[in-house]
Amino acid sequence: MTRAPRPLEETYVHGYDARENERLRDQAGTLVDLLHSDTAYPDGSVVLEAGCGVGAQTLTLATRSPNARFISVDVSADSLAEAKRRTEEAGLDNVEFRQADIFSLPFKEASFDHVFVCFVLEHLSRPVEALTLLHALLKPGGTFTVIEGDHGSTLFHPDSGHAHAAIRCLVELQRRAGGNSLIGRQVYPLMVGAGIDAVRVSPRIVYVDSSRPELVDGFTRKTFTAMIEGVREQALAAGLIDAETFDAGVRALHRATEADGVFCYTFFKGIGEKARCA
Amino acid sequence: MTRAPRPLEETYVHGYDARENERLRDQAGTLVDLLHSDTAYPDGSVVLEAGCGVGAQTLTLATRSPNARFISVDVSADSLAEAKRRTEEAGLDNVEFRQADIFSLPFKEASFDHVFVCFVLEHLSRPVEALTLLHALLKPGGTFTVIEGDHGSTLFHPDSGHAHAAIRCLVELQRRAGGNSLIGRQVYPLMVGAGIDAVRVSPRIVYVDSSRPELVDGFTRKTFTAMIEGVREQALAAGLIDAETFDAGVRALHRATEADGVFCYTFFKGIGEKARCA
Repeated sequence: MTRAPRPLEETYVHGYDARENERLRDQAGTLVDLLHSDTAYPDGSVVLEAGCGVGAQTLTLATRSPNARFISVDVSADSLAEAKRRTEEAGLDNVEFRQADIFSLPFKEASFDHVFVCFVLEHLSRPVEALTLLHALLKPGGTFTVIEGDHGSTLFHPDSGHAHAAIRCLVELQRRAGGNSLIGRQVYPLMVGAGIDAVRVSPRIVYVDSSRPELVDGFTRKTFTAMIEGVREQALAAGLIDAETFDAGVRALHRATEADGVFCYTFFKGIGEKARCA
Repeated sequence: MTRAPRPLEETYVHGYDARENERLRDQAGTLVDLLHSDTAYPDGSVVLEAGCGVGAQTLTLATRSPNARFISVDVSADSLAEAKRRTEEAGLDNVEFRQADIFSLPFKEASFDHVFVCFVLEHLSRPVEALTLLHALLKPGGTFTVIEGDHGSTLFHPDSGHAHAAIRCLVELQRRAGGNSLIGRQVYPLMVGAGIDAVRVSPRIVYVDSSRPELVDGFTRKTFTAMIEGVREQALAAGLIDAETFDAGVRALHRATEADGVFCYTFFKGIGEKARCA
């Protein structure tokens, strides 16, 4: 097993922390809106967030649904400590954190009104099994939300074979670590395969050109390109690519941040529910 | 010069003609909405549609803005005859057709309130020059709309290297014919490069899974896959691929129309205007 590459959302979180000005703060809002604007939970409902990591999504969810209660679970104690620090710093009191493995969660069947999974399936070798277990924890009539990215959706101008080669390194490293960074396109069949009912998937494109300077900096440069740069040593050590090609690929991604450059990336969001009658 | 492959919109038009039932008719509406729902022209305005082809977009434009007047131009007399037949059949009386080359249009500067270009730049070897000439025909304060697809945006599940190889044949044939079927991502820099002001580009994804059977049939099968199938002989004759690989690629695209299959394609729509002060 290879160590998994640092995922998109954590790179994003790092970029987010490092932001220096109001423009980036505004833009972070735009990306959050793109993914989460249609997610809000009713007052009093209990929501399971499976795989909360360092709490990037937890903050958004708990802020947007202040009268819902969130049980946010992750396997990593370190991540949970960071997530807890963040929610406390934000003054949120509607989140409870639990350390547990997604494949053996300490909850009874039909305990939750809603389930939310974001940027988690990409790390799992058995995503349908995970969704099936989570589905069992959902009450009939409850909703199930899944959001995943897909690195195969990456599109940029000027185009560059070197950049695609560098991106393929990340895909391959994630595959060797048991994950799948091309999983976004599979959200529909995975959810249906887990028995989730009435699944509707919608794509969410982050489209970046120089008329959107906040996204050029916050997404193309500090999220996506930073994530690719972050696997350089692993990719070279694994013999997946030579240093010159990789570095040319990273330069090509930076080239897409110039005035005539364009960058696109697509996330997929699926929303389904648990049938009331089995 | 190679003969240009049959373009996406014409394949779509053929699929559209061949539709047998109301569901397909409804779905055609969905795709039209995706591309055109935010395009409507004020009563009395005069709109130049440059490169109308067989009138696929003309029908939508003229129907949606019944009190605007359209001057729809194409270089092909055959296409214009078909476009004229269609608009007459639809009972539209606000369209005037003119045969002319986009690089030598018989109009004075600042003659039009709005300019509309859809699925045209992909066929041109000098797209910025075409946009610059069209921009000169626009009145100050008028809008300029450009819509193009991008075959590099094609994403499907199950993924298949053979299918990507077959798609690359179409891209290469279009390139040899002087066009660029990866042009969608360039809409922003092309428009800005032509001097168009206040350009905003938004991506429009056609997302297809088996919960949307009309799109499975109308878009994945009868539009995109039919378009790829349509270049088989040209691709083989040009030695771009062997028959086995090409056919395996087409089978893989059909595989994406099964119950667990997914298919995505992205169009890019840019809207700008002519600055009031030069």
